[in-house]
Parts: sequence; structure tokens; C-alpha cells
Amino acid sequence: MLRPDPATAAAARLQCRGGLIAPTAGMAPGFTQCNMISLPRDWAWDFLLYGQRNPKPCPVLDVTDPGSHRTALAPDADLRRDLPLYRVWRDGVLTEELADATQVWAEHADLVTFLIGCSFTFETPLMQAGIEVRHVAQGCNVPMYLTNRDCRPAGRLHGQMVVSMRPVPADRVAEAATITARFPAVHGAPVHIGSPETLGIADLSKPDFGDPVQIRDGEVPVFWACGVTPQAAVMASKPPFAITHAPGHMFITDVPDSQWQV
Amino acid sequence: MLRPDPATAAAARLQCRGGLIAPTAGMAPGFTQCNMISLPRDWAWDFLLYGQRNPKPCPVLDVTDPGSHRTALAPDADLRRDLPLYRVWRDGVLTEELADATQVWAEHADLVTFLIGCSFTFETPLMQAGIEVRHVAQGCNVPMYLTNRDCRPAGRLHGQMVVSMRPVPADRVAEAATITARFPAVHGAPVHIGSPETLGIADLSKPDFGDPVQIRDGEVPVFWACGVTPQAAVMASKPPFAITHAPGHMFITDVPDSQWQV
Repeated sequence: MLRPDPATAAAARLQCRGGLIAPTAGMAPGFTQCNMISLPRDWAWDFLLYGQRNPKPCPVLDVTDPGSHRTALAPDADLRRDLPLYRVWRDGVLTEELADATQVWAEHADLVTFLIGCSFTFETPLMQAGIEVRHVAQGCNVPMYLTNRDCRPAGRLHGQMVVSMRPVPADRVAEAATITARFPAVHGAPVHIGSPETLGIADLSKPDFGDPVQIRDGEVPVFWACGVTPQAAVMASKPPFAITHAPGHMFITDVPDSQWQV
Repeated sequence: MLRPDPATAAAARLQCRGGLIAPTAGMAPGFTQCNMISLPRDWAWDFLLYGQRNPKPCPVLDVTDPGSHRTALAPDADLRRDLPLYRVWRDGVLTEELADATQVWAEHADLVTFLIGCSFTFETPLMQAGIEVRHVAQGCNVPMYLTNRDCRPAGRLHGQMVVSMRPVPADRVAEAATITARFPAVHGAPVHIGSPETLGIADLSKPDFGDPVQIRDGEVPVFWACGVTPQAAVMASKPPFAITHAPGHMFITDVPDSQWQV
């Protein structure tokens, strides 16, 4: 794979549009995947500022025009139905999970949609370096945890940081940090290595989102800031309405991962 | 200088507050300098989106609350008078240059101020690597040029990219690119190396902003995206009111340059 084939990204989106419901880690390798959150126009300033103030968990890669379901990251895509699974939030409460968000999208004419970098983007270079990505190897969703770390508030938005976790052999942890640091637009270097208890994580086998993964002897849990953080902000800040992706069920773009490497 | 002394940043700001009018390159070495633009609240969304869509020239490092002249990047600073020189823009036209913006700031109660990364931040690591920064060596302002490259528009804001230029010996250009690439939050890697004519720059000795510098035999002009780009957007887009720094006359923060290194 010298240059990934753009047809694979479009094909993956069509599969999702056609009804496939599955975590997207490992799908269309080499193409950037994104977290998504749609909010009424009235909340857009607060959210864009929340992203600016919290660039590790919320790196904003694109913002739609109000009411649009189109993004420059994949011009042919329809954001309302090309993700495998959506969540609908009303007053901060998760009310529906849907494979197609077209109908709920129509409830608000002025939704502004934010696409946010996802750590799946740097999983390809990790695997190319021979560092196993456990949830890909196990064929499950990445484990994600709500932490005790407050994000910097913006307007009405506040909440705590969510992290994803990948177990890494102790002698490869520095390399995993170095490789991912090169991708600051998609969460970048780990925010925390080892010591889950200081992040407020009591039990790694019980993630708040996604699936638990096996941690082998000699492996260290490595934590990256996670684009589910906006959903934690929705739960804490209770905007009247929001549509997000379901954790791990991302939007697949046409943009090669290499675009984000510094 | 293992760790720069924060007192030097505060002292430099006080000098500016006291009336010093001079380009800030080389002042308080090791501390992040910022471009500044203040706009009425009504234009803030457009500008924050402009920054998100054009992260190379407009990397937003902080945003104030409406009406506030305080920033988290230097909590004791007063943004209205701690820069050496300000520019006031009315309907896109430069109308005043002022050493103290307190009075014009008071014309609008709801100004939102954006602090934007500045390439002076990576000049310290360039000089530490033994790459001379010509405008610092010559004791003048950095040369800046308006290019023929359109920024991605956002709402009412549009305009072309401005670049700064540093001549670098041909055998050090790759190193200059590598060093600065590590600082994506402060313009990062060059956008263009050599060939000024393809950027629409007819004569390097006549910069649009700042001062010309000597280019020696065997040196190549290296161009970095520049935080004067918002001023080009003001000229092109004509918001009713804006206050900016004067090119090269930056806001000196308390944040060590190392914070932006990936």
C-alpha cells in the first residue's frame, strides 16, 4: 500500500449506508476516520471554541455550513447516513441509536456538524511498525474511559476528557508515543502512560464505551485523548439536541492518514 | 538557557506597555509570541472558522471572552497595551497605528480577541541549530509577502495567504524544514521553498510588510505561512472594525516555546 486506493473509503461508506453496523477500526486502512457531533447553530460557537481550547481530545478537522450534510473531507458523502451508527441526544440524555440519521437530522434546519480527528488514523502506522493494535487483532471496539480530567470549558460547554486505551509491550511504549506524536491533528501523543488509577479509571476491564481488551503480561496501558469527549460534554452540559456517532463507529473520509503527519 | 525565565516575558511586555515600539523578534527568547486580531462578537464565528479552515497561516492559540482583554497565555497581561504597536482597521482600511489601543478598544464593548501562533517561536530552535535568522542578525523586522494563494473562505471572511521569508543556506534548508515542522501550532513546516515567482512574489527586496533582508549567494528563500494573513483577510473582507498587532510587533506570552513542539 504505497498510496491507499480512494475507492476503498467510498466503498466502506456505502457499506455503512447500506446497513452495516460495526466498529470501523481497521476499515479502509490508510484513510482518516472522524468523530462526529451535530449541534444546533446556537451552540456552534461554544463547540468550536471548546475544540480550540481542548485540541488534544477535540481536534476539529472540518465544520459544515449550517444545515449542510456535506464535508470537504469526503465531498460525495452524506453525513446523515454514511456512518454505521448514530446516537441522538436530547437535553443531554441518549434517547436513540440509529443506523440512519436522516429523519432526526430534519428536526433542526440549522445543524452545524463538526468532524473531529480519531486515533484510528494512527493505528495504521502503529501496525506498520509491528505494534499490535489489540482491539483490531481481537476484532472488537476500542476500549474508552471517562477520566477525572476536566476539559477547559467554553461558554455553556464543559465536561471531562475521554481516553482510548491500547496495551503496548513495555519495550515498544516509547516508539508508540513517538509514532503517534507525529499526528497532532488526530489526538497525537498519549496523554497518559500506565497508572490508570490516577486518571480515575478503577477497572480497565470495564470501559465506559467500547469493549474491554486483553492486557498481556509485560504490557502497559497507554491512553490517548479520545473524540468521544464531545459526548461527555453533551452529557454534562445538556444542549437541547445533538447527533453524534456511536463510539467506535466513525465517519470514513477520503483523506489519506499521511495528510496529518508532521 | 535550560528553562527560560518567565520574568523576561513579563519584563518585555512592560517595556512595550511603557512605550517601546520595535519588532519583537529576538525579544524574551524561549517564549511564544502571538499575532493578534480583535473583532466584534458578530464576526467571531467567521474568524474562528477561518482559523480552523486555514490552520497553517491562522493557528488559533487562544480566544478571549467577548469584551475581555485577558488571555490564559499570559494571565497578567493587558492585551490593549502590552503589544508594541497596534493597527486599527475600519471597513477594511488601516486608519490608525497606535502604541496603546485602550481607547479604541473601548469603542466596541464585545470585542473577541484571537491570539495566533507566530513563526518567531521556532526561530530560537533554528538559531540553536546554528541556522542564522537573518532579520534577527540584521536587527530589523522579518520580510512578509502577500501571495497569490487563496485561503479557504469562512462566512464573510476571505483573502490570500501572507508568508514570512527567511533565507537559508541550501545545505541547511532540509534541516530548517524539519526543525520547524515540529511546531505545527506556530505555522510549522515551510509552505514553499525557493521559486518566489510561483507564489506571486515579483521582488523579494520589496516585502509587503516588514523589512527586506540580505540574501547571500548559495542561500534559498524559505517561506512560512504568516499570522499577518488575518490582516489580509480584513483588507479583502472589510469587517466594520478590527484591531490587530502591527506586523512583526507581537504579543509576548508566558508560554515556553517548547509547549508547541511535537
